[in-house]
Amino acid sequence: MDRSARLNAGVKIQAFSAPSAKASLELVELEFGELPPEHVEIEVAYCGICHSDLAMIDNDWHMSRYPLVAGHEVVGRVTQVGAAAKRVQVGQTVGLGWYSESCMCCSPCLSGNHNLCPTVEGTIVGRTGGFAQRVRCHWAWATPLAQGLDPAKSGPLFCGGITVFNPLVQFDVRPTDRVGVMGIGGLGHMALKFLRAWGCEVVAFTTSDSKREEALQLGAHRVVNTRDSSEFGALRNSLNLILCTVAAKLDLPALIQTLAPGGRFHTLAAGAEPASLPVFPMLVGQRSFSSSPLGSPATTERMLEFCARHRIEPVTELYPMSKINDALDRLRSGQARYRVVLQNDLG
Amino acid sequence: MDRSARLNAGVKIQAFSAPSAKASLELVELEFGELPPEHVEIEVAYCGICHSDLAMIDNDWHMSRYPLVAGHEVVGRVTQVGAAAKRVQVGQTVGLGWYSESCMCCSPCLSGNHNLCPTVEGTIVGRTGGFAQRVRCHWAWATPLAQGLDPAKSGPLFCGGITVFNPLVQFDVRPTDRVGVMGIGGLGHMALKFLRAWGCEVVAFTTSDSKREEALQLGAHRVVNTRDSSEFGALRNSLNLILCTVAAKLDLPALIQTLAPGGRFHTLAAGAEPASLPVFPMLVGQRSFSSSPLGSPATTERMLEFCARHRIEPVTELYPMSKINDALDRLRSGQARYRVVLQNDLG
Repeated sequence: MDRSARLNAGVKIQAFSAPSAKASLELVELEFGELPPEHVEIEVAYCGICHSDLAMIDNDWHMSRYPLVAGHEVVGRVTQVGAAAKRVQVGQTVGLGWYSESCMCCSPCLSGNHNLCPTVEGTIVGRTGGFAQRVRCHWAWATPLAQGLDPAKSGPLFCGGITVFNPLVQFDVRPTDRVGVMGIGGLGHMALKFLRAWGCEVVAFTTSDSKREEALQLGAHRVVNTRDSSEFGALRNSLNLILCTVAAKLDLPALIQTLAPGGRFHTLAAGAEPASLPVFPMLVGQRSFSSSPLGSPATTERMLEFCARHRIEPVTELYPMSKINDALDRLRSGQARYRVVLQNDLG
Repeated sequence: MDRSARLNAGVKIQAFSAPSAKASLELVELEFGELPPEHVEIEVAYCGICHSDLAMIDNDWHMSRYPLVAGHEVVGRVTQVGAAAKRVQVGQTVGLGWYSESCMCCSPCLSGNHNLCPTVEGTIVGRTGGFAQRVRCHWAWATPLAQGLDPAKSGPLFCGGITVFNPLVQFDVRPTDRVGVMGIGGLGHMALKFLRAWGCEVVAFTTSDSKREEALQLGAHRVVNTRDSSEFGALRNSLNLILCTVAAKLDLPALIQTLAPGGRFHTLAAGAEPASLPVFPMLVGQRSFSSSPLGSPATTERMLEFCARHRIEPVTELYPMSKINDALDRLRSGQARYRVVLQNDLG
């Protein structure tokens, strides 16, 4: 046992825990074991709430283990580093997202695609997340916050943000591209900001005119109501990329027709339903359908630098962590503009 | 009217024509009108038969117009060039595939992606194809045959060949990639040859052990019987790309699982059924599903050079054009190894 591990065994923390599926969260005391040598410990300052926290609390994906401490959009100060941890120092402000550990030695990890590691671990899957005083992770997944970013606003970058930023890097999106964003919520509103700063022509899809002005302010050049057949029809063959953040069943045949030759429909939201794709229009237009999970540590770092340079931050509503159940209800209501963030007031 | 057009008006040719859907072909005489200024005329020496000729003769795609002269894997000598035609000279040996004309001025055409032109014209769609003494096309789609290629073998390169070669260029397939080929027929056997020469690890999928030896001879390093669950299961997470040449309904959830992280399932065969894709495994593994049509004139030229350098040619069975109905039956039987080519004996 190394020295830091001995020091850290037996740390007691307070956390908000779901005792069972769909239950209200309860404040509980947990005891952390030894800090593994490659791990770091973070004192949670802020933690965003993502729809996947709700899905895990509600066991929508049939993989939740209770009691469950959710929360995976953490920003906080490093309090402990394991003996073999790298890059991160005690006292540094870091962020932690959906992934908390990867093997570091498989082909994807060694290629810099740690988010595609076959044994990558979810921060709230079978372990304790960020609705707590402290959270732990492998050092590679604790990304130092870039200079100039507001810790109170940055938590959502580490899950929602990187999810929509990653495809811009993976698929070499160009500033000359015309890109559509479906779903102007937690992920979509960040996509609009990223794409505007990326130099693209940005088209926001909505289903109601009530979000039109907001979408323009967030970065869209144009807003298209998908229920308006003439507005929607005018998009035919025009979009190089669609980033879809909507898990609901979609009219994919109509959406594929809005893609320019060589275009890609990329979904960040995996519903339970299979996607039903018409192959012929994909063939004649050399079109792709794809998806991706979060991003790697290196891509996360690039995103933070990009955000700092372009002064991009999520639009958030702040709640004290002690009011977490109210905050969860706020997100469930669909009214949040656009991401709810908890401020740790547990001491 | 320019001089070449005056000279060419009223040219009479013999052609094999389908009078109606699923009928036997009949030898008829056709009269060509003026040669449009940007067109060239080719004396057909050889013409491959593709499954899409059968589909058009049979009206499987509900877009056939009768009488219909099919044939779109032409190799022959240029007999006439329009006044505004470029690149191609009278007497030169050229090939013509599925596409015969594109607008030359839209964004895809100006970007070199003439095969994605929204008004690209099919050689046998509403016009007269290569089961004839002569065929015409826009100069850009008459690609000079590379030195060293056998005209009698090269016709199938201009449709089946370019269809499977194009994705290697479009998606930057690398010699370090592991690539699966589904369907070892007209397209698939050329894919095996291309991929072997491209430097990839090549895995042939079959549903019967009878094609195992042939697939290895064609270029596969390994052959996997998809009906053998242990062989097929061992492919899990391993393929960077699958090129699918099979239009039949597939077990896409199982096939997607064979893709490595970041992998792509690319189909060259559009059946009438939509593709039903499980989104979650595509998300966690950043996987894509896509399709594409043929290739551009520039990519076709690159393919011909690649074939000449690597001595790649399709495996063909030669029939005299006068026996075209026997040749069509041969292809329909599923026994052809691997592409049937007609030699023009109409004089």
